Amino acid sequence: MKYAACIEYDGSAYSGWQYQDHAPSVQGDVEAALSRVANHPIKIVCAGRTDTGVHGIGQIIHFESDAERTLASWQLGTNSNLAETVVVRWIKPVDDSFHARFSAGARRYRYIILNRETRPAILSNRVANYRKPLNAELMNQAAQHLLGEQDFTSLRAAGCQAKHAVRTIHDIQVTRSGDFIYLDVKANAFLYHMVRNIAGTLFVVGEGLQPVEWVPELMAKLNRREAGATAPPGGLYFVHVDYPEEFALPTEYQLPWFNV
Amino acid sequence: MKYAACIEYDGSAYSGWQYQDHAPSVQGDVEAALSRVANHPIKIVCAGRTDTGVHGIGQIIHFESDAERTLASWQLGTNSNLAETVVVRWIKPVDDSFHARFSAGARRYRYIILNRETRPAILSNRVANYRKPLNAELMNQAAQHLLGEQDFTSLRAAGCQAKHAVRTIHDIQVTRSGDFIYLDVKANAFLYHMVRNIAGTLFVVGEGLQPVEWVPELMAKLNRREAGATAPPGGLYFVHVDYPEEFALPTEYQLPWFNV
Repeated sequence: MKYAACIEYDGSAYSGWQYQDHAPSVQGDVEAALSRVANHPIKIVCAGRTDTGVHGIGQIIHFESDAERTLASWQLGTNSNLAETVVVRWIKPVDDSFHARFSAGARRYRYIILNRETRPAILSNRVANYRKPLNAELMNQAAQHLLGEQDFTSLRAAGCQAKHAVRTIHDIQVTRSGDFIYLDVKANAFLYHMVRNIAGTLFVVGEGLQPVEWVPELMAKLNRREAGATAPPGGLYFVHVDYPEEFALPTEYQLPWFNV
Repeated sequence: MKYAACIEYDGSAYSGWQYQDHAPSVQGDVEAALSRVANHPIKIVCAGRTDTGVHGIGQIIHFESDAERTLASWQLGTNSNLAETVVVRWIKPVDDSFHARFSAGARRYRYIILNRETRPAILSNRVANYRKPLNAELMNQAAQHLLGEQDFTSLRAAGCQAKHAVRTIHDIQVTRSGDFIYLDVKANAFLYHMVRNIAGTLFVVGEGLQPVEWVPELMAKLNRREAGATAPPGGLYFVHVDYPEEFALPTEYQLPWFNV
């Protein structure tokens, strides 16, 4: 039997998603909890690996098991074997053809900025703090230049393993609510550090150090050194993955922490 | 010189606001950090003490010091001596007649409920999780029966030290956004556990176990046993304190985590 599941996790407690021998990983914790419920070793595949300190509220995984458990037993049993920083949101049987990564359509990320002089106390490691005032409207204008199919070489980290840097951004929005600024990006796929590099680049425009037109210019140069610095991981949330309707997975999702 | 300051803190790291010899307290940490900047021992007075696990984003304190420091030095120096779970939002000189507790007018609290079957991972200890579906509209209707000057004996904890239980609620609202439900209460003052007892009582109505009219009935009985259980501390945020205009303190505030 093949199952899909949705995982929410606080990335600040982990050295990233991917299993590592000598560091805490979300994958390692989820595999250990599922294996305990199944009573045999379980390996999971995720829709998209996240870095150290990056959070997930809609990470999708798949795994296989012949253990006979009700869906409620899978979910409750796994959750009772997980730390309070990870939880299985739902679990569903899926067709053999489902693959968490290869079946995935568009992915959505949200990057949250607390734009105030003093650092956050309650949301430390859960938002990025930018101390100088940012103009969210200018950031949004600049972001629109990233829409569509483009070569994102200028916004791709040095260590990126992808074969090419062409990706399609379907939707990108920057909105402000009080001291908070939200960057929402939906794309067919993402390069390594792509959202954090977009955020770091939009900071430059938002602070008024470069005009809106700087963004299409640096994109055209296909050179990572032209863009802004990589923004910190704590503001980044992996929000949602679209799959073809045939797999009948839940399509509703919550943005952290509200739907603007 | 007398100073007022605004403190934000993550209550999950502390055994409450009040100084204790053998447990971590927000007061103890803030006093230690201020004393280090002043180079002499400093005692602080707060607008309202909060319990273990309760958060503050607009707690107001006052203290006295003859140390000659700029306001920026006070704030930056204190923040660099505090853990990442506490921060001084602002600091201002105030008239000798100012008292963080006795000068305070109305206080505002927000209680945040994550209303879904699975527990929170990222916001664990920062929201209260209620697993059964709640009707926020019914909760809001019931809450309106708590408006105005009333005897809150039915919603007052057993250990409450206040001389009488008459308080005035100026405004109370229950709103929903996705899986989140927000209870906002503004009152002249609060009894021990009052907001958490209001939340626990509104849960009973929201779940449909009692009608809206049950709330005025239990209030009239002046008996704590008639109301709902005390809701958990992690959902509670001390948001703002109003002071007379003459003290010229900042009047803007942020609700956690957005202004509905």
